[in-house]
Amino acid sequence: MHALLDALRATVGDDGVLVDAHDLATYERGWRYGAGRARAAVKPRTPAEVARVLALCREHGARVQPMGANTGLVGASNPDTSGAMVVLSLERLARTIEVAPVDGVALVDAGVTLSALNAALAPHGLTFPIDLGADPQLGGMIATNTGGTRLVRYGDVRHNLLGLEVALSSGELVSRLTRLHKDNTGLDLKQLFVGTSGLFGVITRAVVRVVPKPRQRVATLACVASGEAVLQLLATLQAEVGELLSAYEAVSREAMQAVLRHGVYERDPFGGAPPAYAVLIELSTGLAPAVLDLGAALEAALAAHLEGPHADGVVDVLVGRGEDFWHLRHQVSESLREEGPVLGLDLSVPRSQMAVFTEDVQRRLAADFPAVRVADFGHWGDGGTHLNLVLPRDHGDLAGLKRALQDRVYALTVEEYSGSYSAEHGVGPHNLAAYQRFTSPAVRAACRALRATFDAEHALGTFDLG
Amino acid sequence: MHALLDALRATVGDDGVLVDAHDLATYERGWRYGAGRARAAVKPRTPAEVARVLALCREHGARVQPMGANTGLVGASNPDTSGAMVVLSLERLARTIEVAPVDGVALVDAGVTLSALNAALAPHGLTFPIDLGADPQLGGMIATNTGGTRLVRYGDVRHNLLGLEVALSSGELVSRLTRLHKDNTGLDLKQLFVGTSGLFGVITRAVVRVVPKPRQRVATLACVASGEAVLQLLATLQAEVGELLSAYEAVSREAMQAVLRHGVYERDPFGGAPPAYAVLIELSTGLAPAVLDLGAALEAALAAHLEGPHADGVVDVLVGRGEDFWHLRHQVSESLREEGPVLGLDLSVPRSQMAVFTEDVQRRLAADFPAVRVADFGHWGDGGTHLNLVLPRDHGDLAGLKRALQDRVYALTVEEYSGSYSAEHGVGPHNLAAYQRFTSPAVRAACRALRATFDAEHALGTFDLG
Repeated sequence: MHALLDALRATVGDDGVLVDAHDLATYERGWRYGAGRARAAVKPRTPAEVARVLALCREHGARVQPMGANTGLVGASNPDTSGAMVVLSLERLARTIEVAPVDGVALVDAGVTLSALNAALAPHGLTFPIDLGADPQLGGMIATNTGGTRLVRYGDVRHNLLGLEVALSSGELVSRLTRLHKDNTGLDLKQLFVGTSGLFGVITRAVVRVVPKPRQRVATLACVASGEAVLQLLATLQAEVGELLSAYEAVSREAMQAVLRHGVYERDPFGGAPPAYAVLIELSTGLAPAVLDLGAALEAALAAHLEGPHADGVVDVLVGRGEDFWHLRHQVSESLREEGPVLGLDLSVPRSQMAVFTEDVQRRLAADFPAVRVADFGHWGDGGTHLNLVLPRDHGDLAGLKRALQDRVYALTVEEYSGSYSAEHGVGPHNLAAYQRFTSPAVRAACRALRATFDAEHALGTFDLG
Repeated sequence: MHALLDALRATVGDDGVLVDAHDLATYERGWRYGAGRARAAVKPRTPAEVARVLALCREHGARVQPMGANTGLVGASNPDTSGAMVVLSLERLARTIEVAPVDGVALVDAGVTLSALNAALAPHGLTFPIDLGADPQLGGMIATNTGGTRLVRYGDVRHNLLGLEVALSSGELVSRLTRLHKDNTGLDLKQLFVGTSGLFGVITRAVVRVVPKPRQRVATLACVASGEAVLQLLATLQAEVGELLSAYEAVSREAMQAVLRHGVYERDPFGGAPPAYAVLIELSTGLAPAVLDLGAALEAALAAHLEGPHADGVVDVLVGRGEDFWHLRHQVSESLREEGPVLGLDLSVPRSQMAVFTEDVQRRLAADFPAVRVADFGHWGDGGTHLNLVLPRDHGDLAGLKRALQDRVYALTVEEYSGSYSAEHGVGPHNLAAYQRFTSPAVRAACRALRATFDAEHALGTFDLG
């Protein structure tokens, strides 16, 4: 190992190789899940250095854990507990942000953060349209195929990716940094690295699609009486202003009550009684106000709903500042953690099933796990729900309870509602049991074949998709 | 072979197995390229029958050519010249079109045609947003990842595909007909079958994303002085009304002159002198006229351009009916064929390079192939150009000339402009030499691994991506 560390230092510089326990701590523990022990953390500065680091690790038989900003939510960025793995951090591979407005793209190093990319795009009036609470690196966003609150408008990372460069565990650099919006020449290689947790290769650079920053944005909070009514309102908005809809986030009463109890806000807009669902509706557009009055468009759409057959489902529409509504929405996760231990489940079901599914899971958990409180909130516009389960503080076997709940809800979601146990967080040790249970033999066979092609020695990561 | 034919008849019915030369002719020759001889054509009616046909062919050692509507442009849907292959036509697998408006999707059999799908969607106010001259089947569209004239707005087929079912050559049916708009659980299996010409499996059903049919559509024809000016006008439109832009098609003078000579139209809108580029600009929206006046939006955007620094590039903006402008655009390919033998090249380059690239290729071909006329037209909004080369009728070796031109232009496109030799038509025998020349070893290694996994005996198709 000493020979490897010396060779790594010669490659990335002395300050690019960390071995002290204190320095390694932040690389060993994940944002929400995942904890292990690393032998070293290595911080290459260029794609060539990443490739060289991988070649050296292979030569010395060291396994490698790639890591972006370590903000993932499935434990896929942390080393195992062996203490033998090398963490390959992309944090210093963050020098290139090349904006090409006419091409509608940006070329970025994998270690560039989402906020840094958007800061570089802002002077051009452009943005990378993936909207998240965290500030991940681009490489990590691709490896987990990040979703976020504006997926309903712009799609996920996959939809906004044109070119990719990947370092294979052999030390080979595979570069396809295309700026082409269409290129239909057989297998689209980048798709193999999107959402596969860095297990087939380490992403070093990417070409992403960038879009005009909206000139107008309006948001309101609708107080809605039921899950069914949330879907009815969504249907009206999609028919009337669907192409302007950039977020449709529903927060359940249980979740909003937690925000009102523990959050920071100027005033409670619900007068102490939050509705069954508080729905944050956001419209945005790149059109100038002279061409389209966005506020009027939202008002007209809401008026259409309130004149229609499902008007009763909407109890109130709050007037206020969009940022205040977003502020409430963004405090849900943290506030729930104040209520007790939380198991966060990142689910999706066909959009038409959202209300029925949510009621069903609540009913079943109430029967079988009466001490567990269901607080759901999420992206109803795209069929995604973060079903957060608040657990009793005094439960004797919290880990066992979490596993039992995960098993139960995942099975219900996948088997009875044709849903997903991981709508946008990806796959990692945290939900690997579900992956193994619900993934088809064909997918796993393809993964085995690809792993054998790109990382035959299984040097990358701590788990397997095969 | 007789035993196989009997078994096939027992599976799909007597009327589902064709063996007479007369009946087979339409399956043996492609729309533009591709010609071979088939032993039989088989027409299964269900996914299970497709799987059974494949299993039977495997059992009897017969190779299989899957075929949709046979409208592809790279010769990938026709059998080879051995006379031994079985054509598996999906034309009767066309019974299911299940529209789910709340989910925003439709479940379709692979043999359903684009026009049939859109006819079924129309009563719901929905459409499948891939716009083409031909009327292919959905399975073929997925296997070739079709683009079309509205890609700038809606993306290609890949962007509008949620779920897929595939029959492997083993006879196994792999079904992942998900309606989820997000599902982030590792490798996205469907991506392996998009654009890979049916070589890994035969697509039997799909879930596609459907979108609201536009309530308003306006189009105009701008007469533009140069390729650079086409890009300048595009930049203004993207800044002002980018999210409304649904087509941006530029037809060169050479191509438009052919339309005026051979086409069918009421009147020549250019008074005998078409501009360097006639640019068809289309805006569309699902918003009601009361919310957005689309005609006024287009006028405002054009006015902004005509008041800007690049006003000189726009010679004229024609007033007229959108369908008349589209009618001219859609006659380009046919009209050019009246001028002489045509080699159609389906290219893309980074959008910023479109003008420079087009001039460069014209200059180089003029020098080296003076008898060849370059007539370009295409989707400048997404960096795509159909560079059609009109060849001398009396050339002694037309096939040799076509190969030489293909080689020359493909190399220029890919090697000097980081472009694509197949922007939207996919890969087939017609451009296989380019595939072999320009595809990276990593992509080919992945294809070999996937072929070995899904079709180890190479029973499907007439070529290989490995």
